[in-house]
Amino acid sequence: MDQPIVYVVSDSVGETAELVVKASLSQFNNGNFKIQRIPYVDDEGTILEAIELAKSNQAMLGYTLVKPELRAFLKENAEKNKIIAVDIMGPMIDAMSQHLNKDPRLEPGLVHKLDEDYFKRIEAVEFAVKYDDGRDPRGILLADIILIGVSRTSKTPLSQFLAHKKLKVANVPIVPEVEPPEELYKIHPAKCIALKITPEKLNHIRQERLKALGLNESANYANINRIKEELDYFNKIVDKLGCQVIDVSNKAVEETANVVQNMIRVK
Amino acid sequence: MDQPIVYVVSDSVGETAELVVKASLSQFNNGNFKIQRIPYVDDEGTILEAIELAKSNQAMLGYTLVKPELRAFLKENAEKNKIIAVDIMGPMIDAMSQHLNKDPRLEPGLVHKLDEDYFKRIEAVEFAVKYDDGRDPRGILLADIILIGVSRTSKTPLSQFLAHKKLKVANVPIVPEVEPPEELYKIHPAKCIALKITPEKLNHIRQERLKALGLNESANYANINRIKEELDYFNKIVDKLGCQVIDVSNKAVEETANVVQNMIRVK
Repeated sequence: MDQPIVYVVSDSVGETAELVVKASLSQFNNGNFKIQRIPYVDDEGTILEAIELAKSNQAMLGYTLVKPELRAFLKENAEKNKIIAVDIMGPMIDAMSQHLNKDPRLEPGLVHKLDEDYFKRIEAVEFAVKYDDGRDPRGILLADIILIGVSRTSKTPLSQFLAHKKLKVANVPIVPEVEPPEELYKIHPAKCIALKITPEKLNHIRQERLKALGLNESANYANINRIKEELDYFNKIVDKLGCQVIDVSNKAVEETANVVQNMIRVK
Repeated sequence: MDQPIVYVVSDSVGETAELVVKASLSQFNNGNFKIQRIPYVDDEGTILEAIELAKSNQAMLGYTLVKPELRAFLKENAEKNKIIAVDIMGPMIDAMSQHLNKDPRLEPGLVHKLDEDYFKRIEAVEFAVKYDDGRDPRGILLADIILIGVSRTSKTPLSQFLAHKKLKVANVPIVPEVEPPEELYKIHPAKCIALKITPEKLNHIRQERLKALGLNESANYANINRIKEELDYFNKIVDKLGCQVIDVSNKAVEETANVVQNMIRVK
């Protein structure tokens, strides 16, 4: 096996299955894996092709198929061909069916249906783009959550991650030279979340940023005294606003998003 | 059971598990489910608490725990308490271990580690926000993919979905009154993807949009003649650019994202 492959067979897009495969692969320290999705599989012929493909590439296979007869067909033929195949969603669907005493609908792709939930999510994604980086302070009054922080504290990606949870997020940069928008003082402090970071970590991130942009790392932007000045100013604003604080110094955006969700759940 | 609950127990954030639970729930036609994550679980005590919680709420439970002894502990105690509990990632990890003939690392949260992959993703999310809606045409030359389309063809959310796949996406609105940026003519046509839609569908979406904004639905924006004029102009530009076209009329953004990924994979 040169570059190991995992095939993901799905009767819909295969998005959820791919995430499970990715999370599992991370346990094997292996970045050079190839995940190949085979989406919209709804007949036995395509399943046999997928198994053939897996066989000739010495690959394994994960699948999400809602129809029990297709699941059984895949399982049987994978075994016959000595392919390792893992049913990703079947056990959960079966368990739910038992728990709820209800039959599943067995239609593929229901999770992607264009329902209220879907449109809420899309709306939140657009909202976060529109009100990113203090572009329009009116967004502060419309948002579910307002993130504040100095430059490079992951305000933009965090806003997007929370948008995928259907939360409307505006974010506002804090810069000593600019008075924060007055709208920040009009919202309930519980809606405001301040992203704090250590000067050392921020310095490192900004130096990397300058490098990536092909700029000189000694610019004021990554100067430790300038950074401390910015963070002092940030702390003053946080005190004045009385907002909640999260230290993002060593957190991935998904982890910070989780903290935010817990904070607002408690309110 | 009033509002059925599914608990998600994870030794990390529980993001992947939540998606599997959501996708499975969609098969039961039930929007009023509550999914409650219990993140960062790494000891037997917390597992017992979660089982207690599930028991008193007549809930079921899904879990992602990388340590086999914790998995076994949860399974045993769920059975003892007659709680339905589904191991979401265990079978996949075990299968991979067998397939690769390698032991898993058994550290929780590896999928969230701050590695190159992670930073690429974050960078792509920021890129999509920065170069949304033709804000800065220089982005067209820097992007992996350029989306074009008339207003309300899901350019913004699609850009964000693709960003989560580490693709740098710029999007450019097409409006009859505005000449498209010249940068569009400088890129390889294979990078350009045009989002097409039927006039009827677009009309419906725009009317909904106006309603949501509290505006009069008879505005020019949702006028069918105006829409046809916009789409005619759009078609001309598409021909001129020679870019690929996706019909988004009845597609969820995830589905369109899947089509885009396949298109660029072929190149």
